[in-house]
Amino acid sequence: MKYRFADRMKKTPRSFIRETLKVTERPDIISFAGGLPNPSVFPVRELAKTAEQVITDEGSAALQYATTEGFLPLRTWIAERYAQRYGMSVTPDEILITHGSQQCLDLCGKIFINRGTHIGIERPGYLGAIQAFSLYEPTFVPISLEMDGPAIDDLQNFLQIKDCGFFYGVPNSQNPSGITWSDEKRREVADSLHDHEGIFIEDDAYGEIRFRGDAPRPVKSLVSDQVVMNGSFSKIITPGMRMGWICAPKPIMDQIITAKQGTDLHSSILAQRIIYRYLSEYPIDTYIKKINDTYKSQCDFMVGSIREHFPESVSYTIPEGGMFLWVTFPEKISSMEVFERALEEKVAVLPGIPFYTDGGGNNTLRLNFTNSSLEKIDEGIVRLSRVLNRLLK
Amino acid sequence: MKYRFADRMKKTPRSFIRETLKVTERPDIISFAGGLPNPSVFPVRELAKTAEQVITDEGSAALQYATTEGFLPLRTWIAERYAQRYGMSVTPDEILITHGSQQCLDLCGKIFINRGTHIGIERPGYLGAIQAFSLYEPTFVPISLEMDGPAIDDLQNFLQIKDCGFFYGVPNSQNPSGITWSDEKRREVADSLHDHEGIFIEDDAYGEIRFRGDAPRPVKSLVSDQVVMNGSFSKIITPGMRMGWICAPKPIMDQIITAKQGTDLHSSILAQRIIYRYLSEYPIDTYIKKINDTYKSQCDFMVGSIREHFPESVSYTIPEGGMFLWVTFPEKISSMEVFERALEEKVAVLPGIPFYTDGGGNNTLRLNFTNSSLEKIDEGIVRLSRVLNRLLK
Repeated sequence: MKYRFADRMKKTPRSFIRETLKVTERPDIISFAGGLPNPSVFPVRELAKTAEQVITDEGSAALQYATTEGFLPLRTWIAERYAQRYGMSVTPDEILITHGSQQCLDLCGKIFINRGTHIGIERPGYLGAIQAFSLYEPTFVPISLEMDGPAIDDLQNFLQIKDCGFFYGVPNSQNPSGITWSDEKRREVADSLHDHEGIFIEDDAYGEIRFRGDAPRPVKSLVSDQVVMNGSFSKIITPGMRMGWICAPKPIMDQIITAKQGTDLHSSILAQRIIYRYLSEYPIDTYIKKINDTYKSQCDFMVGSIREHFPESVSYTIPEGGMFLWVTFPEKISSMEVFERALEEKVAVLPGIPFYTDGGGNNTLRLNFTNSSLEKIDEGIVRLSRVLNRLLK
Repeated sequence: MKYRFADRMKKTPRSFIRETLKVTERPDIISFAGGLPNPSVFPVRELAKTAEQVITDEGSAALQYATTEGFLPLRTWIAERYAQRYGMSVTPDEILITHGSQQCLDLCGKIFINRGTHIGIERPGYLGAIQAFSLYEPTFVPISLEMDGPAIDDLQNFLQIKDCGFFYGVPNSQNPSGITWSDEKRREVADSLHDHEGIFIEDDAYGEIRFRGDAPRPVKSLVSDQVVMNGSFSKIITPGMRMGWICAPKPIMDQIITAKQGTDLHSSILAQRIIYRYLSEYPIDTYIKKINDTYKSQCDFMVGSIREHFPESVSYTIPEGGMFLWVTFPEKISSMEVFERALEEKVAVLPGIPFYTDGGGNNTLRLNFTNSSLEKIDEGIVRLSRVLNRLLK
């Protein structure tokens, strides 16, 4: 039997991360390659109790088909959180509950991308977004990511392309680089969007995971009707329930509802009601502080260990939040070589290559700091520095 | 601000059902318009206990990111169920857990449909599939649905189209018609697929909801490597958790995994583990029998009431399972008129029009029998027959 698949499948990269993890998740390997939150901060007991109560008290309402937009009290909670954190004025009508924040990317692909539509994406950019958008066959336009955010020249050139769909970026603690855009860059991005009537997809999966410095204002708070923002309960509660959301201006939301209907009817109403009751009964800010304290100690420990052991010619980002830092070394060695030599030393890292839509990044690595103990972080960085020292000799 | 959306959005119908339900779900209205399972058969207490136990016992494994394919024990259970019910030999590798069986349709659209690809669909066909596939801009080719299954001539003509993607159908208790394909039709469909190297998407959302006659063999059991089959826990446990699956030959499954990754990473691992433990600890066949007994009494009651009250010129299907029956009346009256007059009588029905991709069906209605009490079924049919008698006078 000869199968014929749609053209888009040839253009969609299989996740390098996923394939890599199969090798790297052996128990004898210290892995900085993945992107898992630290399970020690999951509120297991609280969620067990909440799940039982929701089903018992709410019965069939928690188990029946539900609306495409999602559970109104949860959408109201999210709207109020935007008001409280950023002074943003958003109504529950502008919020739809998604099956993880990744689904926001699929839905944006669906409603905005024709084959060939130009999509701006940070360079390096989030691999999950590259995959999600690739399924709609866009033309990617890389926008250089500087230490304080996207290169404004690149962005303005992009926004002048006739068939320009949207610019996608992760302003807070980006995956993979760990970079947070400065307030100034955010204003410049907002001004550029305003001048050119551009659309921005503001991926805020890591917005609440912040352990250094003040939270900068979302770009959406500056040019609301030109920004689709997403958010996620994966990093502040747990990822396994796949609960995220989209916040979008009404005319865009209308299209998203139609797309969501065709895609999967609606998100799990049980999960929505569990999350909502959990948020109502437990002090979420206390839990988020605990997560941030944990991640700060893990991040600081990795940075300290890198500072002590890595060769001087290797540079790295110092994240203000999120789960990753980004390592750049001299171009004479390749990340695939580092990856392979490191595996021999039983430490797993993620080569930066798949985060570039136009090639390049061969001298970069992404390191995850949230899913290893302090001991393993130290041991892993020591092993990795042995590899780098050897290759850079 | 002027927004520009992808071309596909112009081609995707907003759900008529969804819009209708807003009007018809007022408490004073008897509604046969929706498609909800009967919540009285939801295993509320069992699921409350199971959810609590899964989170308590399995902890972070039930809450962390998980694999794209899904929870292996659940996939194994599904494979064994196929073996037990139909003698089908399917491996867990050929099964992926989806976010409701609707997501199977989105993923099949993604991997098979280019703009313009020809898609065969029953006439009338499932509205959720029309919506899901429309997002990939196919050319629909209607295949007449006869009382025992699809018209084989139509199917063979379709399969000879050069740019033919797949034929989609619901052989068991179809939504909207309630028709179940005969064994003979299934064999003819399988032969046609075999002769023309065609692909069939076999939607089996209602496969276990069967209260009359033996379960016919799936088309997949006859030409396995040419069929993608889906299934759902929505009708046999509850729909609110959005748990379904795809069963596909390995080369197709490889593409589905890539598409699923980009779409939403994976389905809720918590929901998967709850469903799996529920299936392990409770006698599912006893619960399914209870559902089928309930639905049989509701269906029989509706059929009896129709027989007693409807004008003779109105015909209807007598389902062997599922949740719907299909009413056809003389062409001189229109279903929209029936819909409006019925609403005045405080009974809601669903006009058949949106189930036709090529127009037509104006003299048809879909009636749901699973979500009303016997009393309301009788009262609703009496009111509806008043409307029909008046219009047909």
